[in-house]
Amino acid sequence: MVLKLYYDLLSQPSRALYIFLKLNGVPFQQCPVSLMEGEHRTEEFKQKYSKFQKVPFIHDGDFKLIESIGIMRYITREYPIEDHWYPKDSKKQAKVDEYLEWQHLNIRLNCSTFLITTWMNPMRTGKQPSQEKYDSSKKYMLKSLSTFEELFLSDDGPFLMGKEISYADIQAACEIEQPRLAGFNPMVHYPKIKTWIELVRKECNPYYDEAHEMLNMLAESSGKSTKAKL
Amino acid sequence: MVLKLYYDLLSQPSRALYIFLKLNGVPFQQCPVSLMEGEHRTEEFKQKYSKFQKVPFIHDGDFKLIESIGIMRYITREYPIEDHWYPKDSKKQAKVDEYLEWQHLNIRLNCSTFLITTWMNPMRTGKQPSQEKYDSSKKYMLKSLSTFEELFLSDDGPFLMGKEISYADIQAACEIEQPRLAGFNPMVHYPKIKTWIELVRKECNPYYDEAHEMLNMLAESSGKSTKAKL
Repeated sequence: MVLKLYYDLLSQPSRALYIFLKLNGVPFQQCPVSLMEGEHRTEEFKQKYSKFQKVPFIHDGDFKLIESIGIMRYITREYPIEDHWYPKDSKKQAKVDEYLEWQHLNIRLNCSTFLITTWMNPMRTGKQPSQEKYDSSKKYMLKSLSTFEELFLSDDGPFLMGKEISYADIQAACEIEQPRLAGFNPMVHYPKIKTWIELVRKECNPYYDEAHEMLNMLAESSGKSTKAKL
Repeated sequence: MVLKLYYDLLSQPSRALYIFLKLNGVPFQQCPVSLMEGEHRTEEFKQKYSKFQKVPFIHDGDFKLIESIGIMRYITREYPIEDHWYPKDSKKQAKVDEYLEWQHLNIRLNCSTFLITTWMNPMRTGKQPSQEKYDSSKKYMLKSLSTFEELFLSDDGPFLMGKEISYADIQAACEIEQPRLAGFNPMVHYPKIKTWIELVRKECNPYYDEAHEMLNMLAESSGKSTKAKL
């Protein structure tokens, strides 16, 4: 029975997992879920698909699993995956894990909070955030991006783990693309991030662009409407 | 060369890792770092010990690693660890990972934010949080605790992964003990959490109590001073 991936390409970890599966030729059934249309919020969805009501998740036969990073690890055990994505060498794997654990309360939390505060909530409620909330969410995002550049984009690069690309690069890139939806492009402000993300994109294409197609489209119109503000 | 663990027992992931190493008889050198005294904030600390300036972390010879969950995985590869803590079976391991990934932006984020808002910031600045900030941080913490009970403390228990205790239980218990520092005891409000955490404590003693000694002492005095408020 083929692996089923439930995802929304507007979700950062959904894109990361989608790109990873495609790059490695893992066969999977594409099961898109529209978060914007609230498809995940129904009782039927909860009972039938996932009690967690978030994406991405997989069904591998009867086995259900959420959380993109845990899913990536499961996939590396179950399918033939090129070693550099998540190395078997204990110390190298530990360094990939280090980034993947660190990012939750840094890059992921702070880029997402900025997006929710300045784009998703206003779209949902019709109300703009207070100046205090806007400034605070932007401040934490900028701090995370600076820390990311300082701690992970070192001279040992060009990738987060050095000479070879790993899942940490895909995960990080998909998160850092996200604030573009709210009209803020980290690549404009952080030259090291720009150089690195262009390399990740090149390594992951055509799937990187495929996964970011909708985001690129929305970011373009969002960029125009919020340019004055940022 | 013996493994060095740098930790502060007032940090939740430090306690989890300390308990795990002790329970499994992993030999390590105890290197306490006082976060309250800001020992991690100096330039010397950054250069000599960890550029991340947070705990816990390990030095295994020349190899430096942060992030408790990544460290736990590294330890299971490098030392003889009882399988139930982080099972080798692919699906069982994936379910432990599922919790360990999920918790970052749920239990960990929301219990910590409550603590920072209502205890750490007031201690640092001498100013109480606004009612709005207090209510908001409490609301999200309560929501996370309810979701935790609903999604992870099912009838298949008594542990998060079923019949056997895993690292997910230690990690979760250490996070859920934390708001007691701010005078809020989840065990009083969530009977399923109370039953489960008592069992985790029993399985992990004497190290559970040893790791929580300072927290228990501070929580008792904090409980007295904030009882009226909560």
